[in-house]
Amino acid sequence: MSEHFSTIAAISTPPGKGGVALIRVSGPEAFAVVLRVFRPRGKSLPWERPRTAVYGDFLSEGEVIDDGLVTAFPAPASYTGEDTVELSCHGGVLITRTLLEALFLAGAVPAPAGEFTRRAYLSGRLGLTEAEAIATLLDAKSTAQVRLSAARGVLAERLDAYYRELLTLTSSAEAVIDFPEEDLAELSTEELTRRLHALREGMTALTGSYRTGRSVTEGVRAVIVGRPNVGKSCLYNLLVGEEAAIVSDTPGTTRDLLERTVPLGRVLLRLTDTAGLHASDDPIETLGMDRARRAMEEAELLLSVFDASAPLTDEDRALMAALPKGRTAVAILNKSDLPTRIDRQEIEARFENLVEMSATCGTATALCELCDRLFTDGALSIGEDPIVSSARQYAALCRTCEALTAAEGALLAGMPADMYLADLEAALSALGEVDGRTVNEEIVREIFSHFCVGK
Amino acid sequence: MSEHFSTIAAISTPPGKGGVALIRVSGPEAFAVVLRVFRPRGKSLPWERPRTAVYGDFLSEGEVIDDGLVTAFPAPASYTGEDTVELSCHGGVLITRTLLEALFLAGAVPAPAGEFTRRAYLSGRLGLTEAEAIATLLDAKSTAQVRLSAARGVLAERLDAYYRELLTLTSSAEAVIDFPEEDLAELSTEELTRRLHALREGMTALTGSYRTGRSVTEGVRAVIVGRPNVGKSCLYNLLVGEEAAIVSDTPGTTRDLLERTVPLGRVLLRLTDTAGLHASDDPIETLGMDRARRAMEEAELLLSVFDASAPLTDEDRALMAALPKGRTAVAILNKSDLPTRIDRQEIEARFENLVEMSATCGTATALCELCDRLFTDGALSIGEDPIVSSARQYAALCRTCEALTAAEGALLAGMPADMYLADLEAALSALGEVDGRTVNEEIVREIFSHFCVGK
Repeated sequence: MSEHFSTIAAISTPPGKGGVALIRVSGPEAFAVVLRVFRPRGKSLPWERPRTAVYGDFLSEGEVIDDGLVTAFPAPASYTGEDTVELSCHGGVLITRTLLEALFLAGAVPAPAGEFTRRAYLSGRLGLTEAEAIATLLDAKSTAQVRLSAARGVLAERLDAYYRELLTLTSSAEAVIDFPEEDLAELSTEELTRRLHALREGMTALTGSYRTGRSVTEGVRAVIVGRPNVGKSCLYNLLVGEEAAIVSDTPGTTRDLLERTVPLGRVLLRLTDTAGLHASDDPIETLGMDRARRAMEEAELLLSVFDASAPLTDEDRALMAALPKGRTAVAILNKSDLPTRIDRQEIEARFENLVEMSATCGTATALCELCDRLFTDGALSIGEDPIVSSARQYAALCRTCEALTAAEGALLAGMPADMYLADLEAALSALGEVDGRTVNEEIVREIFSHFCVGK
Repeated sequence: MSEHFSTIAAISTPPGKGGVALIRVSGPEAFAVVLRVFRPRGKSLPWERPRTAVYGDFLSEGEVIDDGLVTAFPAPASYTGEDTVELSCHGGVLITRTLLEALFLAGAVPAPAGEFTRRAYLSGRLGLTEAEAIATLLDAKSTAQVRLSAARGVLAERLDAYYRELLTLTSSAEAVIDFPEEDLAELSTEELTRRLHALREGMTALTGSYRTGRSVTEGVRAVIVGRPNVGKSCLYNLLVGEEAAIVSDTPGTTRDLLERTVPLGRVLLRLTDTAGLHASDDPIETLGMDRARRAMEEAELLLSVFDASAPLTDEDRALMAALPKGRTAVAILNKSDLPTRIDRQEIEARFENLVEMSATCGTATALCELCDRLFTDGALSIGEDPIVSSARQYAALCRTCEALTAAEGALLAGMPADMYLADLEAALSALGEVDGRTVNEEIVREIFSHFCVGK
């Protein structure tokens, strides 16, 4: 740690009125700063009894403004790794702000967003993947996201094991180059080849977990499309879980794009409802349909809704023809509670995935299971297996795998050690980026800027 | 405590996303309930190390969902007086709710609003005046409110001292009646008279502090009035501290009543801006002026604005004549930055209080000092002296004083002890209501219903 650290303070609990608010202070002067705004009712100062809540009065400009608890976490056994103090005061907006300002007057400085977690990372208490997992947890909208974040330690451990293995292999290759006559290489070429292969296979599998991790954390962009009055907004409301879209018998009720983020099983859907596609002269409807078409182009998952109680129309067929290629498309045969009159074979010829349902009186169970199957890997247990969940982690891991593949090729082709050493070193550097061993200041700043103040 | 207590749980920090959230559990089963959702990483359970933060994992349905700190406060040394546990988890909305639901599955029940504080009161850890002061603190909008709440212990102590003194005097009177021959009365009639008089004087002074307490906590209903274009909305914006009202050169810009609660010095103003009063045929303006007149009727403080740079107009004079009597009226001579052309004497003849200012380029210092002087008692130090701050406390104290006055009269008139004993007992009962010794279930319910959940 070459950086000079100030003593920071921030309100760590959500803004607004509550019963209790928590203010965190961290840094070399944390105890001295808190001593200026806190007077214990008993004899002990909080840092004389580490990790123990001490009751007393909070002061601002020498006057008592509140009573509450103060807990000290001396370095290094704290979240940040520095001396840290937590002040628990009454959760009024003004009282909390007054106490925070008293801390600033006492020598603390305002903590930028994510600064506590950034310090935890810089002091080695937390890897970058764990910091990202905490950011996911704070924003989590699905229980799968919560579970994935809970397994942050598993991913960190796995990456650590890979890193240590790669370090061993790289050192071995370096030894061969530096002292070629002395036969210092701890590993035989066979052993090196075998272990390099195993490492690459493991890392490739880990990279493959990103499909699941991404669906859980970043979500899948899904668009509901169909001709008017097939029940698109009904499906939207069913998935959202409330009457978010106006539903009526009048065709063309929906005009604007409606958007919500909705957990569906393990997958997080970034769901859009659109205007029904058909021939129309109405200028507002036309604008709505333009938006619907643009949304289709940007989607990964097309939920194409049909009225199963009526024969296919020309509008249905036009829609099928207009669906952009290369996306996962699911045909939703809606109104399955009514007698079926749709031509199922014609639909099956176009769609690989088909779900029968009644958006008005049914559940989305079948669609939920389908999405899980389409976007997540059933072999992975979220909350137990290491899963890559951010584009940043994925990109760095892909670069690691590429470098490993190159090294493996060179080794198998019998090239000299300095040919594959460069590849191994590139792999090591890329892998180090994933959990922040190889620091890239830009990336670190980017990650922590997404946190809220006080974390 | 005859009431059977369940074990309650609630999120005590404000709703929304933050770095940290705090969940409180309180009741006879608090430890057993938390044990089902928390697994410490070390060897100690939180209740084996009271008041000490224990690190570990939070579980939901057997799966780890987060890590965090748990602190146990065994009865009776806790906020509620019961076994209490505080769980500090990451402050995401879903993770916090998931942990709370895990606690419900583990046997806790949702805590109604204010239930933690109600239990603190029922277990004798907190008097009613202190509970009311905490409610004030949570909603505090001015530093004077914060300070007044901080002195809650001072008021509770003073009330306790008065209660004990009154109990002594009443017991003495009872002894005289029950055992008249035995001369058991600890106090002579002179002594009793003297102490009763001193008590009544002290309580009357305390009652007098309500004028200050009310201005600080409940606030003063103030209305800005005047003819069009004298700068009413400018004054409103200056006091509010932002461009809350649209200001323009066009007369009649303001139509609706604009309302804000604004701290001005120690006083909390419940401030209303109104439409300018003048002769108009415009139906919307007429509606606005009707509202302005109603607001004047309900006000305690009339801020009557004049344009000091112009002679008084007939509209100004009509307004002065229309100001309702019996209110505190302040003449604001606005636009004091321009040459004065108003007839100051005519204003002084009508108003006791007069402030010169420029709402566009000045400050409200003079008005602030005037309001402090008009509505609070300068001899009282907020934050140090006991101050009565709720209508409920005030009403009960007034009844106490009345009964004491009656008792004193009976005593001075040489009436027999049973004549003044009834008055003393009435006084004791009324005084007991103030801090909740004499319980009135209705009042208690009313007080705690104003708290938020989790407090």
